[in-house]
Amino acid sequence: MEPLNPLFLEMREFCGIVGAVSKKGKDVSELLYKSLFTLQHRGQESAGIVTFGESGFNTHRGFGQVKDVFSKDILKELTGHIGIGHTRYSTFGDYRNVNNIQPLFVSSREGFMAVAHNGTLTNYDELRAELEENGYVFHSSTDSEIFLYLFLISEGNNPEEKFKEIMKKVKGAYSLLFLINDRLYFLRDPWGFRPLVFGESEDYFVVASETAALKQAGINVYEEVQPGDVGIYEGHNLKIFNVGKVLKKEQCVFELIYFSRPDSIIFGENVYRFRKECGERLAMREKREIDIVMPVPDSGIPASVGYSKALGKPLEFGLMRSHFTGRSFIEPSERDKKVRMKLIPIQEALYGMRIALIDDSLVRGTTSREIVKLLRENGAKEVHLRFASPPIVAPCFFGIDIPTVEELMASSVKLRDLEEVLDADSVQYLPLKVLKDILGQRSEEFCFSCFSGLYNPETVGEGILSRFKGYHPRILDEV
Amino acid sequence: MEPLNPLFLEMREFCGIVGAVSKKGKDVSELLYKSLFTLQHRGQESAGIVTFGESGFNTHRGFGQVKDVFSKDILKELTGHIGIGHTRYSTFGDYRNVNNIQPLFVSSREGFMAVAHNGTLTNYDELRAELEENGYVFHSSTDSEIFLYLFLISEGNNPEEKFKEIMKKVKGAYSLLFLINDRLYFLRDPWGFRPLVFGESEDYFVVASETAALKQAGINVYEEVQPGDVGIYEGHNLKIFNVGKVLKKEQCVFELIYFSRPDSIIFGENVYRFRKECGERLAMREKREIDIVMPVPDSGIPASVGYSKALGKPLEFGLMRSHFTGRSFIEPSERDKKVRMKLIPIQEALYGMRIALIDDSLVRGTTSREIVKLLRENGAKEVHLRFASPPIVAPCFFGIDIPTVEELMASSVKLRDLEEVLDADSVQYLPLKVLKDILGQRSEEFCFSCFSGLYNPETVGEGILSRFKGYHPRILDEV
Amino acid sequence: MEPLNPLFLEMREFCGIVGAVSKKGKDVSELLYKSLFTLQHRGQESAGIVTFGESGFNTHRGFGQVKDVFSKDILKELTGHIGIGHTRYSTFGDYRNVNNIQPLFVSSREGFMAVAHNGTLTNYDELRAELEENGYVFHSSTDSEIFLYLFLISEGNNPEEKFKEIMKKVKGAYSLLFLINDRLYFLRDPWGFRPLVFGESEDYFVVASETAALKQAGINVYEEVQPGDVGIYEGHNLKIFNVGKVLKKEQCVFELIYFSRPDSIIFGENVYRFRKECGERLAMREKREIDIVMPVPDSGIPASVGYSKALGKPLEFGLMRSHFTGRSFIEPSERDKKVRMKLIPIQEALYGMRIALIDDSLVRGTTSREIVKLLRENGAKEVHLRFASPPIVAPCFFGIDIPTVEELMASSVKLRDLEEVLDADSVQYLPLKVLKDILGQRSEEFCFSCFSGLYNPETVGEGILSRFKGYHPRILDEV
Amino acid sequence: MEPLNPLFLEMREFCGIVGAVSKKGKDVSELLYKSLFTLQHRGQESAGIVTFGESGFNTHRGFGQVKDVFSKDILKELTGHIGIGHTRYSTFGDYRNVNNIQPLFVSSREGFMAVAHNGTLTNYDELRAELEENGYVFHSSTDSEIFLYLFLISEGNNPEEKFKEIMKKVKGAYSLLFLINDRLYFLRDPWGFRPLVFGESEDYFVVASETAALKQAGINVYEEVQPGDVGIYEGHNLKIFNVGKVLKKEQCVFELIYFSRPDSIIFGENVYRFRKECGERLAMREKREIDIVMPVPDSGIPASVGYSKALGKPLEFGLMRSHFTGRSFIEPSERDKKVRMKLIPIQEALYGMRIALIDDSLVRGTTSREIVKLLRENGAKEVHLRFASPPIVAPCFFGIDIPTVEELMASSVKLRDLEEVLDADSVQYLPLKVLKDILGQRSEEFCFSCFSGLYNPETVGEGILSRFKGYHPRILDEV
Repeated sequence: MEPLNPLFLEMREFCGIVGAVSKKGKDVSELLYKSLFTLQHRGQESAGIVTFGESGFNTHRGFGQVKDVFSKDILKELTGHIGIGHTRYSTFGDYRNVNNIQPLFVSSREGFMAVAHNGTLTNYDELRAELEENGYVFHSSTDSEIFLYLFLISEGNNPEEKFKEIMKKVKGAYSLLFLINDRLYFLRDPWGFRPLVFGESEDYFVVASETAALKQAGINVYEEVQPGDVGIYEGHNLKIFNVGKVLKKEQCVFELIYFSRPDSIIFGENVYRFRKECGERLAMREKREIDIVMPVPDSGIPASVGYSKALGKPLEFGLMRSHFTGRSFIEPSERDKKVRMKLIPIQEALYGMRIALIDDSLVRGTTSREIVKLLRENGAKEVHLRFASPPIVAPCFFGIDIPTVEELMASSVKLRDLEEVLDADSVQYLPLKVLKDILGQRSEEFCFSCFSGLYNPETVGEGILSRFKGYHPRILDEV
Repeated sequence: MEPLNPLFLEMREFCGIVGAVSKKGKDVSELLYKSLFTLQHRGQESAGIVTFGESGFNTHRGFGQVKDVFSKDILKELTGHIGIGHTRYSTFGDYRNVNNIQPLFVSSREGFMAVAHNGTLTNYDELRAELEENGYVFHSSTDSEIFLYLFLISEGNNPEEKFKEIMKKVKGAYSLLFLINDRLYFLRDPWGFRPLVFGESEDYFVVASETAALKQAGINVYEEVQPGDVGIYEGHNLKIFNVGKVLKKEQCVFELIYFSRPDSIIFGENVYRFRKECGERLAMREKREIDIVMPVPDSGIPASVGYSKALGKPLEFGLMRSHFTGRSFIEPSERDKKVRMKLIPIQEALYGMRIALIDDSLVRGTTSREIVKLLRENGAKEVHLRFASPPIVAPCFFGIDIPTVEELMASSVKLRDLEEVLDADSVQYLPLKVLKDILGQRSEEFCFSCFSGLYNPETVGEGILSRFKGYHPRILDEV
Repeated sequence: MEPLNPLFLEMREFCGIVGAVSKKGKDVSELLYKSLFTLQHRGQESAGIVTFGESGFNTHRGFGQVKDVFSKDILKELTGHIGIGHTRYSTFGDYRNVNNIQPLFVSSREGFMAVAHNGTLTNYDELRAELEENGYVFHSSTDSEIFLYLFLISEGNNPEEKFKEIMKKVKGAYSLLFLINDRLYFLRDPWGFRPLVFGESEDYFVVASETAALKQAGINVYEEVQPGDVGIYEGHNLKIFNVGKVLKKEQCVFELIYFSRPDSIIFGENVYRFRKECGERLAMREKREIDIVMPVPDSGIPASVGYSKALGKPLEFGLMRSHFTGRSFIEPSERDKKVRMKLIPIQEALYGMRIALIDDSLVRGTTSREIVKLLRENGAKEVHLRFASPPIVAPCFFGIDIPTVEELMASSVKLRDLEEVLDADSVQYLPLKVLKDILGQRSEEFCFSCFSGLYNPETVGEGILSRFKGYHPRILDEV
Repeated sequence: MEPLNPLFLEMREFCGIVGAVSKKGKDVSELLYKSLFTLQHRGQESAGIVTFGESGFNTHRGFGQVKDVFSKDILKELTGHIGIGHTRYSTFGDYRNVNNIQPLFVSSREGFMAVAHNGTLTNYDELRAELEENGYVFHSSTDSEIFLYLFLISEGNNPEEKFKEIMKKVKGAYSLLFLINDRLYFLRDPWGFRPLVFGESEDYFVVASETAALKQAGINVYEEVQPGDVGIYEGHNLKIFNVGKVLKKEQCVFELIYFSRPDSIIFGENVYRFRKECGERLAMREKREIDIVMPVPDSGIPASVGYSKALGKPLEFGLMRSHFTGRSFIEPSERDKKVRMKLIPIQEALYGMRIALIDDSLVRGTTSREIVKLLRENGAKEVHLRFASPPIVAPCFFGIDIPTVEELMASSVKLRDLEEVLDADSVQYLPLKVLKDILGQRSEEFCFSCFSGLYNPETVGEGILSRFKGYHPRILDEV
């Protein structure tokens, strides 16, 4: 299983989406705002809301966090009983271009259309070329725009047929909200890469990336949009059709490991419980003598709780998180110092200790290396890095931005050299086998490509491969 | 010729456009910035620049004045030896929508395309409906987007043919810049409503709305883009084709009267001289005893110079302009106070005087009324309003935003009642006949519709008429 | 011990101060900036730096967090090898007044003087009245200004004598930095209310509120400024004098309980260890059946670690902290929703559980009440509130802002009613006796007034009492 | 009368002040805001308002123009029926220091005191040293602070006596507003350097730098505060005392020439008329053949009106002012381009012409030189510079910032070389004799020091001289 390359990714991409309809004709902008706030961890680069009501459509979009993009006055102007919202960290596309801020919206022969999208298409380039050939032009470099045009050129007789046609053409990950005049459509790719759930209260129908957003809206009972399903909320009726069938689901396991909020239920799995169990299973494999268990806050906390419990070793907080970080102008050139301004080592808790330091995953490695250094400076006797997921050894084509294959290869490190590279006394991670074991039979329904380098050929388009020239993913028949 | 409605317009619309190519491969962003600055009087609502070079295209656009939208750092990032810029005051369209900030730019089967537009189409609705029927979607509510799609659906074999086809379809006013990859196209509608000039120095080829922008770029010799002409600047070659023929030119006389900078030469006319002559001709018709001549600064100055000279009465500056206005938060609800914060009456200059107050044109009238009041308060003995153009009695379909016909009708005032409405001792204006006389034979090539209510049927589409339901313009055969 | 009033305070006041001298003549602005950043938890309302060097003094101050007040360019302009910095949350004084942003600085017969202050004087009113009587005027409403004038009117022959005189006059809490031309003075009140430490590296001499700031500056060995001590750093020499003697030290125990950073050593006590031990002692008193231990993040974490360990019950993170809070415009009117946007309940972790919820202290109670509600909504079976310090029953005169006695009284609740008020299944806290026991013999050197209502008469001026008319603190002889 | 140095000054300093009392107990903040707006030409660097009412004092101050410093919400919070305001361009003092923004305000034994000041003290250094010796400290580097302390240390039994004492001690220029609790004091130095006027309507009592501000407040009848007078507005009563007597008034003639608004009446002179007459007298001395008269807009307009009339030559506007200047980031390094972005040459008006270009005064000369260049480039046949005041040959000690004597001397140019330096066909200015002649007998009451180099010894302190070491002003007995 070598050479490996566990150090190449900055996994902070993805988007959060939410759609809402007020059953009583009230404005939905505040609900959308709060939901986006709840989904803020899925992207802090830009945010937008589009609403539709009697006075037509209203919109506001901008760069920055949800709280900075919107103000009370702006929300008031966003009248309309139906709307969609988006918060984004670009997977690709020129981030400075205002055209790329979602939701996208257009006027067409169908009337007003807006779209909010979470995911990444793997045959974007082919589809775009084809659409451009048909005369379509692209105002943005987000792949969301593709869906608008596919819908319009579809020969289907009704939305159901149109979306069926779209699902046949499109490869890759997408959870999608469509607003067409006063109808809300939502769909999830047939493989189910990204989460999408919906639910309703007496007052509202809401569809969102995570259950946490529904809960924020006062909706505790939810349903998952099944892979390949299309939902239509029109008038006061909800209809669901399954229009996309595939051999095998490919739900992104990284949603459980890192992306989603710990209070969400993603793909039917409770995120907190999942992470805790990963920690427990990691503990079962522990062979070193450990004095204390320490999480890298906050993402490593759930796993550390499980690990501590399973190992019977006390949890300590030898690293605390400073609440005053944000974008300091001293940051850019000195990543290590960023770690030092963000994490506070508590000498008292860790001095002279043999520490199991629990993190959710091993991505770039630079942060881990710096933390080890910090702990040693503060008197740690031994630092044992424990990652509650397998190492990442291959690119993700479905949402994670990997600049170039060169970069990927350059950072490649053999696993057995990890201890040296990270300067840790030992490094352990959760083997893929164990990760699958935790998911049990359901593991068949997940995508582990970034851990395995194996890809489901159904899901990989030519377009994405052309971006990874020189990289030859193993696309096995037997996946 | 009654009833009339001279009071309905806020004529501050229009746009400024500029395109530039560096012959020596240098960046054009700074030249575009300075040119937009020079064209700032043509629109202060938003500004944008798109450049194209070896590293692809770059863009920055935003709401506000040119100096606020751009910074030194941003200009530096806008690399590229070719580019176009735009400064805008919306004629119609939702002004808060970032999608409406020009230049628009898209990716298409032709490659990268950007467009900057000055003008208003009168068959926008029909063209848009037709394009939407063909599956096109509209991301903006600017009519510039129309041109992109017309170009793409055109069956012409080359740009020349395509633009010829476009000119056949489109009605209304448009001076247009197209950037398609590294080629710069520019065209002017067959009637020549809006100005467009070009010229070149050793270093640059520049095309812009006004000669003032060329001059700022160090180009003193210019040529007019002729109505119906298409220019292509590609490599280091310029080609010009005439692709649009019409019976009669319709150059906007209001460009001379108000819009353009006094140092520009517009439609071959020197703006300053034209306005001065308007003042002289106005003076020749003076029947009242006048002590002093006073301009409404600054737009009334050139006419007042001519008026003073012709009448042999001294020019006084009884109204001076405050340089500290801008958007004060006390403004909105109190227009009269805005006048009072903007204009400073000099009691010494005007006390006891019989004043001829020279303004460029009579539009809404509210400003005039307030100025008369201000002068009387400061001891003016008599205030004689003199407008250096005819009264506006009909809507402009080619660039001036008239919200509704109702509003237009409501503000309708009979000319003989003007003195009473404006509380002036007398009101005079330049008769249309005299205005035409000043232009001489060339007057045939101008549009006077807002003064006459007569429209060239060639130029008026159904779309624009539908926006003026209840208004029946006299479209005469003999125009 | 009734009536009590545990619910009245928002304990978020205090300030952070830092002074630095470069031994090698380099600029200290960046060191001061980073140190203030480290002390940011002590106040986020305003920040300022004053430096002094060959080109005289430089200063920049503003409202907001350290990272927002300063920029790279500003730091560069703050040249000088010596300087002081301040970060502040106002204890009293008009917060909008720019004059109140510290460091204060003036020109006087002594030359340039700047002062940064952490603490609250209890005889401010008397001292100010006296100084005003002498003709002094007050530009700010911070009590820091008092020190400037007392220094100037002092009849002492040298700084040592002057500060001795000042210490005799001033009552209350103060840790203070003085910059007089190129000399740095620092002093701590004779009771030692607020912390102040110093240390030096090869390059710098630094004095700061907390050891964390020294550590950030690369200084791991520190010394405490003893109560009543004055330090002078001049040239390359440090001299320390003791000029203030008192019967009994009064170090603020709340610094240990809440204010200080967990990695600091305050009054010789390791903050993290102290909080952990408070949790342990709290656990020893536990009489209820508990399933899981949960901290209120992040301030309750150290106590929860101790509590969990001592009780042998697992630590769970049923409440996680959202990193995307900040000042949202929905906040102000709805405190409860603020809690809900800030804290994320993890249903999975807490459903059906009997929870010991560990918080550092019981202040206003509104937050606790809302958290209990939140946990119950998410399925908690029982919620047992455990506070790792005694209830606050009396005002603090030494730094905590208590608006009026009326407010204090109105919020008064008998301890036995707390369960009902907070809707908890049980409420326990650390008895004062136990808290003292943890400190052992050193407890004699601490102030517990907010827990006891007993005040050291030496420390309480008339001025502060006049602000609490109707409140009669028990000032016992035997304290 | 050589060597001369006409090129050294950027005369843009000075301040505007206003005080107001509502007779009917209403808030004065909006009136103060509007008045400051009217006085904006006297300083754009910072602005501030202090009000006093039943709820005590309120204040807001900041850097920038009046419209940017204040908002509607802020004005609302500035409750109080009495207040003072200030707009400033620093004469000296660190401009970045927030402490320097006026009005200054303090608390003292007299209660609340605020002060707003227009002018410059010439014995500031001596007074400050003396006050520092007395223990006073200076929070700002504005000389306004001096007045606060002089008032407090005064042994006078009442304000009248105190101000009398102050006037004896202070040398230099000052028009001053004092707010002491609910009493408004205003005074003008015995020489009357700076203007100060007051008046009242049914609703308000207002005192301000210029009559224009009174007029804005609806007050058309005004009175001048006489040199050496102190006014007290208390309750509903106004009392005026004369407490300062001098041999000779020294009203600043530059207020008439440049600083004041043309609609103001300053020192009893109508500014517009005065400037116009300067132009007329300049014309009488014309020996060259002139085709057209052109003002440098806007400050040269009044003189050009008079010049044109007297010479019988037509006024043309060959230079128009762009309204879109402001602070562009391209400005700083390229002054000449600034002129080019600010002034628009109208080729049509000036081509082939022999031009008399009228400016108010000859200060730095760089602007004049650039304008000449611009006119020649646009085809001017001859450019004759005509300045409607004498050349500046000596420093002003009473409000104009002259960095160093070295700079002053370095820029020294002999008058007969001016044509060459400025590249003009001829240069003429208004001789001092003629300027005095215009003022007639009243000329005795004016200060012409910057034109003559002669100073009234009564007005010049040692402090100011120390700032001009190496410069020996001719202080003649016979002045």
